[in-house]
Amino acid sequence: MFFIQIRPRRADKLAGGSFTRSIREFDLQALLYDGRAVRLDPRYAEPKPLPDEAIIRPLKMGLCATDLEICRGYMNFKGVLGHEFVGVVESVGDKQHKKLIGQRVVGNINCVCSKCDMCQRGLREHCRQRTVLGIAGRDGCFAQQFSLPVVNLTAVPSSVDDDQAVFVEPLAAAYQILRQLRIEGRPYITVLGDGRLGLLCAQVMSQLNATVRLVGKHPQKLALCEKWGVKHRLLSDVGLRADQDIVVDCTGSPTGLQTAMSMVRPRGTIVLKTTIAPSPAMANLDLSPLVVHEIQVIGSRCGPIPEAVNALASGKIDVLSLISRRYKLADGVEALNRTQNDRQLIKVLLEP
Amino acid sequence: MFFIQIRPRRADKLAGGSFTRSIREFDLQALLYDGRAVRLDPRYAEPKPLPDEAIIRPLKMGLCATDLEICRGYMNFKGVLGHEFVGVVESVGDKQHKKLIGQRVVGNINCVCSKCDMCQRGLREHCRQRTVLGIAGRDGCFAQQFSLPVVNLTAVPSSVDDDQAVFVEPLAAAYQILRQLRIEGRPYITVLGDGRLGLLCAQVMSQLNATVRLVGKHPQKLALCEKWGVKHRLLSDVGLRADQDIVVDCTGSPTGLQTAMSMVRPRGTIVLKTTIAPSPAMANLDLSPLVVHEIQVIGSRCGPIPEAVNALASGKIDVLSLISRRYKLADGVEALNRTQNDRQLIKVLLEP
Repeated sequence: MFFIQIRPRRADKLAGGSFTRSIREFDLQALLYDGRAVRLDPRYAEPKPLPDEAIIRPLKMGLCATDLEICRGYMNFKGVLGHEFVGVVESVGDKQHKKLIGQRVVGNINCVCSKCDMCQRGLREHCRQRTVLGIAGRDGCFAQQFSLPVVNLTAVPSSVDDDQAVFVEPLAAAYQILRQLRIEGRPYITVLGDGRLGLLCAQVMSQLNATVRLVGKHPQKLALCEKWGVKHRLLSDVGLRADQDIVVDCTGSPTGLQTAMSMVRPRGTIVLKTTIAPSPAMANLDLSPLVVHEIQVIGSRCGPIPEAVNALASGKIDVLSLISRRYKLADGVEALNRTQNDRQLIKVLLEP
Repeated sequence: MFFIQIRPRRADKLAGGSFTRSIREFDLQALLYDGRAVRLDPRYAEPKPLPDEAIIRPLKMGLCATDLEICRGYMNFKGVLGHEFVGVVESVGDKQHKKLIGQRVVGNINCVCSKCDMCQRGLREHCRQRTVLGIAGRDGCFAQQFSLPVVNLTAVPSSVDDDQAVFVEPLAAAYQILRQLRIEGRPYITVLGDGRLGLLCAQVMSQLNATVRLVGKHPQKLALCEKWGVKHRLLSDVGLRADQDIVVDCTGSPTGLQTAMSMVRPRGTIVLKTTIAPSPAMANLDLSPLVVHEIQVIGSRCGPIPEAVNALASGKIDVLSLISRRYKLADGVEALNRTQNDRQLIKVLLEP
């Protein structure tokens, strides 16, 4: 267990009673990782927007595996966690953007310099100087307010409610795969891993002219595929026959890539969605199939926010079925602990 | 040291004197890996050709890193080693091929079924039932005679001499990269690893409209680039700045991929040429840059034999500078040991 909840002294003193209720009344809050532990910080300062930025008040926030990884040291990030949100623009740094105030928005989490070689090439998500909301060099959205550049924001149409819109960031990451793959004929596609991202990817891939199946370890999660008309199999029931044209690794496990290599056909493609930190399990990783079978591996990260908004607006993607639990932001430490330890949970939302 | 030379009893008895000379006089020879050690087998039986096969007498044979890997257990192969050769067709299994007899040939080492899904797709190198000369299910070319299917053979023009032609198999593997890559603009390409394959790849990649450099650890090997007009740098002098569009990993080392990930730009491409067996060093392998930087990895194995023959015939590729030593087949065990232990050697040839 790596989360330690530190009781804030001031809140205790003022209210004497329920810790979470008291700090909600008197202070701005934020869920902070300080490099050692996660704690609720009630003395979080209201961010001041730069001229090109907006201040956003989140309506819903989503917990992601990356948040848990950060709490294990991934990215060496310290600060306010969180990068999945839908929120309302509270204020802007420059008057010319004032029409944004009051709008419901989602956002691209990569904040870029517009000057480096990557930005100049049009690869803004790979900006050399970028900060990333709640992941690298920029406080995240698990707070009562946070800031993002105005250019990063996309308005949410009224047909998409808050519970749907909070899925835009991970859904965009699933749509990113469609931009990176070249689909020929009617390929066999396996999405590996029945977690949050796997369940989104399975739905997105099903829109292709392809035979798609989701393979996972949790019958309860796989069962969601029934209502979407997506094929699904338990990993233990699947033959590793090197016959899939495309395998999308959403396992979040160091063994996911090895399983994917056993499933994909020679000259096939593995889309790698999981950021795998070094682990002792990797000592057994045999990468030689990549060469022997001339497999192509494509790393895939963030995706197109407007495409994800459109997909939700058109009703193509069911995200509401993925919501397992809701917590108040003030109970964020408990939410992280629970998400970490309960394998049956799919998506956990935070609310202000 | 994993090679044990077993003195063949019969040869000893017959000649009493020099072991290698004696068996060359009386027996067919083959360099055999029996699953534990490599030995010269003087009682190797002359192969009988199937109707679609030819019997070939090698004129020159090349030692490859894969031969050394096999002697460490790679592919679980047992049998006659060797897959790089130029030879003369001695006999054929069917009269219709008799015009091949006496021709000087090189060959595709993958022997296929023509029936499986991969063969039907045109991916013959990935035949599900394939045998591979000296690597999988088929005795190799480090023998006085060996067999290959007639369809695998390519005639060698008189403008290409034996010392050049013996490089056709690894040179084809280098040309395979050109088939797999999509080149846009004028990319920066690093070939990583200054061994046999790296030196060939550097020359082949230099034919592209690209800025190519070879990066390695051996000044003596890198110096060969001078005469080819190829840029070269010592690895210790190179900044790992994630600025290369394409990195070709020819290191043969479990750390090669990690170095390649540090060199390639976001959305760049790594061509993986090295078959990396699992090793404790892999526990430190951090694959997360593949996802974060959306890097593409392309596994690359065997290539087009006729293209390699044409390249040699046109004088585009200098292979003769790579020849470090020559051994008699009868001294094959010593040749393998030396290749294993002397990092200064580039290409070691065997001769009958």
